Amino acid sequence: MNVAILGYGTVGSGVYDVLTKNATIISKRVGFDLDVKYVLDLREFPGDPVEKILVHDFKQVIDDPGVDVVVEVMGGIHPAYEFSKEALLRGKSVCTSNKELVAKHGAELLELARANNCNYLFEASVGGGIPIIRQLIRSITADDIERIDGILNGTTNYMMTKMKLDGLAFDEVLKRAQDKGYAERNPAADIEGHDACRKIAILTSLAYGKQVDYEDIHTEGITKISDIDVEYANRLGRAIKLLGSSKKTEDGRVFAIVAPKMIKESNPLFMVSGVFNAILIEGNMLGEVMCYGKGAGKLPTASAVVSDVIDAAKHAGKNIPIIWSREKLELGSFADMKHAFFLRIPAYKKTDALDRLPVIQVLEDVKAGEIGVVTSEMTEGEFEKAVADLGVISMIRYEL
Amino acid sequence: MNVAILGYGTVGSGVYDVLTKNATIISKRVGFDLDVKYVLDLREFPGDPVEKILVHDFKQVIDDPGVDVVVEVMGGIHPAYEFSKEALLRGKSVCTSNKELVAKHGAELLELARANNCNYLFEASVGGGIPIIRQLIRSITADDIERIDGILNGTTNYMMTKMKLDGLAFDEVLKRAQDKGYAERNPAADIEGHDACRKIAILTSLAYGKQVDYEDIHTEGITKISDIDVEYANRLGRAIKLLGSSKKTEDGRVFAIVAPKMIKESNPLFMVSGVFNAILIEGNMLGEVMCYGKGAGKLPTASAVVSDVIDAAKHAGKNIPIIWSREKLELGSFADMKHAFFLRIPAYKKTDALDRLPVIQVLEDVKAGEIGVVTSEMTEGEFEKAVADLGVISMIRYEL
Repeated sequence: MNVAILGYGTVGSGVYDVLTKNATIISKRVGFDLDVKYVLDLREFPGDPVEKILVHDFKQVIDDPGVDVVVEVMGGIHPAYEFSKEALLRGKSVCTSNKELVAKHGAELLELARANNCNYLFEASVGGGIPIIRQLIRSITADDIERIDGILNGTTNYMMTKMKLDGLAFDEVLKRAQDKGYAERNPAADIEGHDACRKIAILTSLAYGKQVDYEDIHTEGITKISDIDVEYANRLGRAIKLLGSSKKTEDGRVFAIVAPKMIKESNPLFMVSGVFNAILIEGNMLGEVMCYGKGAGKLPTASAVVSDVIDAAKHAGKNIPIIWSREKLELGSFADMKHAFFLRIPAYKKTDALDRLPVIQVLEDVKAGEIGVVTSEMTEGEFEKAVADLGVISMIRYEL
Repeated sequence: MNVAILGYGTVGSGVYDVLTKNATIISKRVGFDLDVKYVLDLREFPGDPVEKILVHDFKQVIDDPGVDVVVEVMGGIHPAYEFSKEALLRGKSVCTSNKELVAKHGAELLELARANNCNYLFEASVGGGIPIIRQLIRSITADDIERIDGILNGTTNYMMTKMKLDGLAFDEVLKRAQDKGYAERNPAADIEGHDACRKIAILTSLAYGKQVDYEDIHTEGITKISDIDVEYANRLGRAIKLLGSSKKTEDGRVFAIVAPKMIKESNPLFMVSGVFNAILIEGNMLGEVMCYGKGAGKLPTASAVVSDVIDAAKHAGKNIPIIWSREKLELGSFADMKHAFFLRIPAYKKTDALDRLPVIQVLEDVKAGEIGVVTSEMTEGEFEKAVADLGVISMIRYEL
C-alpha cells in the first residue's frame, strides 16, 4: 500500500522516519508493507533520502490511483483543506496532525470520508503522541463524558513550570522557551491560548458528537500571569496551568473555556511539567482517566500520524464511524459558567471584597499594598459584577 | 442485540448498571439497543432488578441463538474457561475482566474467536477502567515497545501510599486496607504480587505478540517492606511502588519482573497514589505515554467491560485482529536483568559493601546499627553474588 506525505517539515519528515525505521514491525501489524511513494513540498531537499520521491505538484499525487493514504502535515487551512477534500473525494484516506483544519472543517471532512468509503483520521491533532482521540471515541464508549481538562500546549506548560520552579518573570521565561526552540518567534498562538482552544474544541466536538466552534470558546492565555501570581499559587499549594476545559452540567448544557487555573496537588494534572501534555477525562461510570505524554515533537507526533496510517491501511475501503456531525453544539454562555476564583486586589479594598464576594481565604503578606483572596464557586457573571470596582490586579480561576 | 452476563458479583452487577443507566448514549454510539437477556448466577437475588432474567444453568444461555455477546465476569479459571470456549465456538463474542483466565488461556481463546468470526475482548482485565489494552494494541501501533512499567494493583498502591504518608507499619496499613474493603481477608494475591504478575504477563504478551507465561516472571510482593524502608525512601526523594515491568533490551531480549521499586519524583508514576493504577509505556518513536485511572471498583471496571461489549456489537460477525500467538516468548533470565539497588546492611559491613558493590550513596543516620546503600546498575546475578555475606536487612530496586 502506498502513502503520500504532503509537507516535509518537522512532522512530515518524522512520518517518513517512523514509516521507514519501524517498517518491519508495522508490516507485521498491518499484514503488508506501507511504502512512501511521494513527498510533496515546494522546497528541494538535495541529498535527503526523499529526494527521489519528492514532487512539487499535488496533481501528481492525487491523480495516481496507486496512492491509498495521504498524510496531510502541511498545517494551516489552505491549501490543506482543498487537498484533503480532493483526496477524500477520490477515496484516498487522509491522516493529519493539522488541528486548525480539523477544528474548523473536521465534521465536513468526516462526512466526505464516510460518503467515499475512506477515512479522515487526526489522532496527532490533539496531544501530539498521546493517543487521546482514540481513547475518547473508541475506548471510553460506555460513558457519558462529564468533563475534559487538558494541558494541551507544551510551550505554555514549559513556561508555567519554569516560572514555578525558578521564580522567573514571564518575559524571561518566554525568552528562554524561545532560545530552547520550545516557543516560536511569534508565540501568540501558544501563549494566548489559541492552540489549546482548537484542541479543546476538537475534543469537545468528539465527546458530544456535534460541532463545537472554537470561536465560541472563551479563551485567555498566560500573558497576564506574573511571578507574583506564581508566588501566591505556591503559598496556596497550587500550580498554575493553562487548561482547555469542557464540562457537561446536570441540566445537559456543555461549557468550554481555555484559561489558566490554579490546580491542587491531588489533581493528577498538577505534576505534569515541562513540555508534556496530559488530558483528564471524567466519565459518569469510569470516573477520572488521565493520559500523559509528549504533546509535541517530531517523532511522538509522527508516531500518532503513523498509527492513523496503519488504521487507514487496515480499514481500506471501509469507513471507521466517528460521530461528529456538522450540527452546531450551542455552548452554555460564559456568564453562566461556575468557578472559584483567586484574585489580587489593593489591600484597602479588603472590606469591600469581604462584602461582595464569598471569600474563603485571604493572604495578606505576600506583597505589600495588596491582598490575595480566594472565593468559593460563583458564576462568571456574578464574579464580574462583584469585582467591578475592586481594582483587581490579577485573577486566576481556582480549584477548591 | 442481546447480552448475557455470567456472574452477578461486583463487576457483573456493575455491567448491568452501566448497560441500563447509559442505555440511551450506548444505543446512539452502537446504532441499536443492547439488552441484557440473562444474568447467570448460582445465587438468587429476590427483589433485585435482574430477578426476572436470572438463570442458573449455563445451557440456557449458550443454547439461545438470541444471545450475541457473553460477559464473563465470574473470575477464576473454572468454569469460566469452559464457558468462554463454548460461547466462542458458537460464534458468541466474550468480554471479560478475568485476568487470571486471560493470562493463562488468552492466546487460545483469541484463536478460537478468530476461527469463529467473533471476538474475545478483555479491556477490564488490566487496569480496571483504564483503557490500556486498546492503547497498547490499537493506538501505539507505529512503535516498537521498549518498556512497560505499571502500578497494576490498587490495594498495594493504597498501602504503599499510606505507609509513605502516615509512616505506619505494614501490618497496621494492611489492617486499615482490609477495614476499608480495599484488601481482601486473604490478601495474598495482592500483597504477594500475583495479581500484578498476571497483568504484566498480559500486557507483555500483547506488546510482543507472543505468549508470556506468568509463571516465568520473577515476582516479589510488598510483604517485606517496612516503615524503615519507607523512611529511607523519603530521605532519598523516592517513593516505593509495586511495579509490574517489562522491557526489551537492545539485543531483542524481553525481561519481566514484579517487585517493589524506589522511583524518583520526576517519574510520572511517582504521584500515582491511593487505589489508582497507572501504566507507563515507552515506544521507540513515541517516548513515554502514561495512562492513569481507577484500576478497580465496580463501575470503572464495568465501564471497561461494556466498552468491549460495544466493540463486540459493532463488529458482529467480524473478528478484530489481536496479535497474541500461542508461541511462547522466552523471557531473558532473571540473573541477567539489570537494576540499581537500595539495600540496608549492618553498619559494620560498610567496608565490605564498598569493596564489593558499585556504591554511589551511603546513608548512615536513619537507623542505629545499620546503613543504607545505593548502587549503580548491575545484573541481578552480580548483585546476588556480591551481597551473599553482607547480612542484607532489606533490598529494594532503585531508579537512578
